Amino acid sequence: MFFASDNWAGAHPKIAESLTREASGYAAAYGSSDLDKRIEARFNELFEREVAVFFVGTGTAANSLALASVARAGGVTFCHFDAHVNADEGGAPEFLTGACRLYPVEGENGKIDAEALHGHVSRFDVPSVHQGRPMAVTLTQATESGTIYSLEEIAEVCAIAKSKNLPVHMDGARFANALVALDATPAEMTWKRGVDILSFGGTKNGCWCAEAIIFFDPAMAEEMPYIRKRSAQLFSKTRFVSAQFEAYLEDGLWLELAGHANAMADRLRSTLKTGNRARLAWETQSNEVFAVFDKALAEEAKAKGAEFYDWLVPRDMPHLVSENEVLVRLVTSFATTDEDVDRFLDICTGA
Amino acid sequence: MFFASDNWAGAHPKIAESLTREASGYAAAYGSSDLDKRIEARFNELFEREVAVFFVGTGTAANSLALASVARAGGVTFCHFDAHVNADEGGAPEFLTGACRLYPVEGENGKIDAEALHGHVSRFDVPSVHQGRPMAVTLTQATESGTIYSLEEIAEVCAIAKSKNLPVHMDGARFANALVALDATPAEMTWKRGVDILSFGGTKNGCWCAEAIIFFDPAMAEEMPYIRKRSAQLFSKTRFVSAQFEAYLEDGLWLELAGHANAMADRLRSTLKTGNRARLAWETQSNEVFAVFDKALAEEAKAKGAEFYDWLVPRDMPHLVSENEVLVRLVTSFATTDEDVDRFLDICTGA
Amino acid sequence: MFFASDNWAGAHPKIAESLTREASGYAAAYGSSDLDKRIEARFNELFEREVAVFFVGTGTAANSLALASVARAGGVTFCHFDAHVNADEGGAPEFLTGACRLYPVEGENGKIDAEALHGHVSRFDVPSVHQGRPMAVTLTQATESGTIYSLEEIAEVCAIAKSKNLPVHMDGARFANALVALDATPAEMTWKRGVDILSFGGTKNGCWCAEAIIFFDPAMAEEMPYIRKRSAQLFSKTRFVSAQFEAYLEDGLWLELAGHANAMADRLRSTLKTGNRARLAWETQSNEVFAVFDKALAEEAKAKGAEFYDWLVPRDMPHLVSENEVLVRLVTSFATTDEDVDRFLDICTGA
Amino acid sequence: MFFASDNWAGAHPKIAESLTREASGYAAAYGSSDLDKRIEARFNELFEREVAVFFVGTGTAANSLALASVARAGGVTFCHFDAHVNADEGGAPEFLTGACRLYPVEGENGKIDAEALHGHVSRFDVPSVHQGRPMAVTLTQATESGTIYSLEEIAEVCAIAKSKNLPVHMDGARFANALVALDATPAEMTWKRGVDILSFGGTKNGCWCAEAIIFFDPAMAEEMPYIRKRSAQLFSKTRFVSAQFEAYLEDGLWLELAGHANAMADRLRSTLKTGNRARLAWETQSNEVFAVFDKALAEEAKAKGAEFYDWLVPRDMPHLVSENEVLVRLVTSFATTDEDVDRFLDICTGA
Repeated sequence: MFFASDNWAGAHPKIAESLTREASGYAAAYGSSDLDKRIEARFNELFEREVAVFFVGTGTAANSLALASVARAGGVTFCHFDAHVNADEGGAPEFLTGACRLYPVEGENGKIDAEALHGHVSRFDVPSVHQGRPMAVTLTQATESGTIYSLEEIAEVCAIAKSKNLPVHMDGARFANALVALDATPAEMTWKRGVDILSFGGTKNGCWCAEAIIFFDPAMAEEMPYIRKRSAQLFSKTRFVSAQFEAYLEDGLWLELAGHANAMADRLRSTLKTGNRARLAWETQSNEVFAVFDKALAEEAKAKGAEFYDWLVPRDMPHLVSENEVLVRLVTSFATTDEDVDRFLDICTGA
Repeated sequence: MFFASDNWAGAHPKIAESLTREASGYAAAYGSSDLDKRIEARFNELFEREVAVFFVGTGTAANSLALASVARAGGVTFCHFDAHVNADEGGAPEFLTGACRLYPVEGENGKIDAEALHGHVSRFDVPSVHQGRPMAVTLTQATESGTIYSLEEIAEVCAIAKSKNLPVHMDGARFANALVALDATPAEMTWKRGVDILSFGGTKNGCWCAEAIIFFDPAMAEEMPYIRKRSAQLFSKTRFVSAQFEAYLEDGLWLELAGHANAMADRLRSTLKTGNRARLAWETQSNEVFAVFDKALAEEAKAKGAEFYDWLVPRDMPHLVSENEVLVRLVTSFATTDEDVDRFLDICTGA
Repeated sequence: MFFASDNWAGAHPKIAESLTREASGYAAAYGSSDLDKRIEARFNELFEREVAVFFVGTGTAANSLALASVARAGGVTFCHFDAHVNADEGGAPEFLTGACRLYPVEGENGKIDAEALHGHVSRFDVPSVHQGRPMAVTLTQATESGTIYSLEEIAEVCAIAKSKNLPVHMDGARFANALVALDATPAEMTWKRGVDILSFGGTKNGCWCAEAIIFFDPAMAEEMPYIRKRSAQLFSKTRFVSAQFEAYLEDGLWLELAGHANAMADRLRSTLKTGNRARLAWETQSNEVFAVFDKALAEEAKAKGAEFYDWLVPRDMPHLVSENEVLVRLVTSFATTDEDVDRFLDICTGA
Repeated sequence: MFFASDNWAGAHPKIAESLTREASGYAAAYGSSDLDKRIEARFNELFEREVAVFFVGTGTAANSLALASVARAGGVTFCHFDAHVNADEGGAPEFLTGACRLYPVEGENGKIDAEALHGHVSRFDVPSVHQGRPMAVTLTQATESGTIYSLEEIAEVCAIAKSKNLPVHMDGARFANALVALDATPAEMTWKRGVDILSFGGTKNGCWCAEAIIFFDPAMAEEMPYIRKRSAQLFSKTRFVSAQFEAYLEDGLWLELAGHANAMADRLRSTLKTGNRARLAWETQSNEVFAVFDKALAEEAKAKGAEFYDWLVPRDMPHLVSENEVLVRLVTSFATTDEDVDRFLDICTGA
């Protein structure tokens, strides 16, 4: 019963097979092999336009270097307070952008509140070296809270950014989960709504280590080759990433895996909603479920072999849990089985 | 006939198998899985002492973060002018150490000249904020020139560093090739000679992407978890690195692969030494061979399918090639075949 | 009628005289002259203990390098949202600390709310490379909002920091104004309450350019000489700073000047409190006054030669001004005259 | 007998007077006062074209921020090995450019050898993220060795830079000394020869603290306001710098002071050339003289009150001094008196 994180799962068999298949023979290094080129072209198709693609090693690297590509002295990036860049990347976004700042914005359900965003960005309307200057807005899809921006919400955030001439970055570590939940196309969820740069994550959804930065306007990526190398994120044997993406994107495997993870989360959601020793902390739509457990239940579940993390109560929900309760995070993945969900729910419902 | 680089080869079948084997099931992320722990313990055995091990994504990351672990304001690291950190890492060592400087030192055959090193470091003997202050010495084993420091030469460089209280880092992107050539143990070639931190590279020798920073005194690694995360080099599914190292280190596979690559280079060396349209540029001992080719030969070989790079003439050998000649680099790997070497040498010798 | 900022005033005549007096003759550079040493000793007396003193060129430099002295990978510094470091230093604190983060904390009247601080810092209680790690708390005395922490409030903030093993920095750009308002000694307002590092500002209070970083534990300053030089803040002719501080600290000049500025602000406060076209926006205790003006009044005053800035409405006071009103900031200084205040108040009261 | 450094002298009386004169009254801060504007216009005249001017606090800041204005990921700046940026600025150029690298170039007499420069820069002709990319050439006028580039030599270095599309920066900490020695105009020694950015130093030549970065194409300075603020180099009371420059540039004071310093150095040079216990180490043309002294003489001179520094023997002149000799540096300034020179030379010649 593994619900600790989607990165506790290994790699999907088809990903592993693809790696084995590509392991032999020679290929040019540093992104110039035929396979690399083929995968880049595959991303063009996927997004229905010419894009620039840069592989990196971690989601943190993808986010940080995406922001580095638009960094400038005194630059400020607006993000949700609970965004991964702000809460979970150990200062990498600051470090790899040359010390640019993240400016946390409030918003319910882990989503940037558009009106609040407008207010914050507008505080910089009068140019001032003292204040610094806005350089980007970044949103996370699906969010760290398990919620998903609707297409309209994405458009709304992007519109505010555009009105201030700011590029928009989307952290898509769980891009597939959001896409499936919205039943949208990759283009619809990104550049058609105003997103300029995307961290396209494969690792949490069945790859070993496959992350890509996608620029919807390749001209914006001009400095990226040097930025990536400077940050030690240029792999020599890039085909090992390409090989993962090859299998990942073939025949919709990526959507299938995300769909499975979401469905498993749905099962958790529908049962926990009605439990009496456990309840949903808030509504989510992706493969993450947040629940308030009786402490006794949490301990019992762990004793019976369930793996999951206790979670920090959000800053804006101080009264979420009572003294004998605990907030827990449950994450499903491509590898989650019906059996595991059944066993876990049985424990939760006392069945 | 692929002699462009050892990173044009893919992964050894046993590495691929290990990855497939470890792909299923769940494992704790971020370096805390059982497999990760087992591999860490394996490194203790390998080096005959307790070491601290940190996986990272690239050799450039390994070198840069190793130096970051000893970085301080105004810090200066001494390296050979042609060292990878100085010549081929796109500024990553400076960037990831928070702007510390590399100080290039001369020396024949790509090796730091010990006496010259002593002279340079001694210029900092009187502490001065204006000059900055030494923070490390780094040497490359095997060197970028294909040569290898003898154990005595390593000891000599380390002794100078120690006399100035400086830690020593070894860039071991081709550690195995050097080790095999010297017929030494890992301990003998490192801490027993005075090396403090090692970049242990697996990628060039049959892994997909497996690099580790080894601290021979774990106390020196205290800050590394934060330094690594800040640099976006902490993988979530670390078992994909561990799985590579598991196969790599099992039953001496790594030494076998390096031995093969070296042997293939030996064949190139012994024949080219006596050729008349091609000659060795200088003596090497690892899996890299540098040769001066008639331009016509170089073109002919490429036309017949040989892959290799023309190389910049070293700064200290301005008269190495005449006008109708070109310096070329030939690199062998675990995947190089006798047949490829035969065909290539036939072209070179006009056979 | 100059109320734009205390940095619109030039230098006090005694400061100018001191500079002229010290201009001739030779003195060792880079902080090692007799005068420099004498001033350092003067600071020991002032703070009733041995301190380490570092001159720098700007208040922003003082704050940024103070934080740089305690910086570490993944480091997070807690400050009030409206603190100068967060709102007005153009990213210097991040840049000069090697990309450490500022974590804005709420609190009324521009002062960190101690309970809120405790909550935020406690979120880091479980060590995690993902979250980063607390490295300092910084508070501003007097605050950017014109308010002043009482000695008890300083002690309270410091106690929380100490309970988490965090050093405390005080931004004292308007240190003298606060000190006079509280009628405390320098020691009482700093280390006796738990402050570890102080930015001691002279520029806003009658110097040309005289800022010092004070370490109450000299052992904490070990790296500072290199940090300061790396940041290009080591002046060669340091006696020009020392000469300013010499006059500044002699016979209590600094307290006299701050007392005058505060008294001028008191006059503004007491009259504006009761006006009908102007009212105090909130209570202040230093040489800064914030008032809500009818827009017509603000325009009239400017037309009649008053210099002051319109100010951004604080984030936590969205309803402070109505549509035909504007928030203004009025700052007095050592150079403010009774006549100027009279004329300005006459305008405000329609006298 | 003060020959330790030109920064041991204080400020010229006219500089001190100007500061006193400007100390009273109010003026807009942060570079926007009338006086500031007047001085900016004065620089336009001086350089016979519209320039962009940025005051900063130290020569190290001027050099570092000038380079920061052309910095980019993987950037490499070519300088002489003994250049101040490389030898004496404690890593500030790297730190304040966001970790760009300095690439030391050889050359006699402290001057970049043009042919060598061409060779080094040409090594980057094939773009490569691994190598990084050239971003600037910087030369020092007068050099740290006391020598001066002729106008032709400046043109030659600039021509090479231009042929590679590289901007040229000139470190003019001793700009006036060089200008007077060459009897050239400011325009002739800079942009008319191809210099793009100049560090214009006043501090060593009679100011307290007055350094300016001059952009000969103001369009290149677009990012500078943010870069300067981020580096904590934006003074609030900028008129204190302007007031210094006002006096400095009035009626040719700056050239007079530099001329005096040079003349004093000429006297040292002409006598030491022929001494038998002291000899010139090499020919210089500015206000710096390097001499080889018998150790006994050096001790005697110091015992008799002469202040000067022993100096590191240049890397490329290892046999300059014998065992009982020492290299010393003698620096004259606007404040050096004939009497001091007489007394010192009497000691040296045993008169």
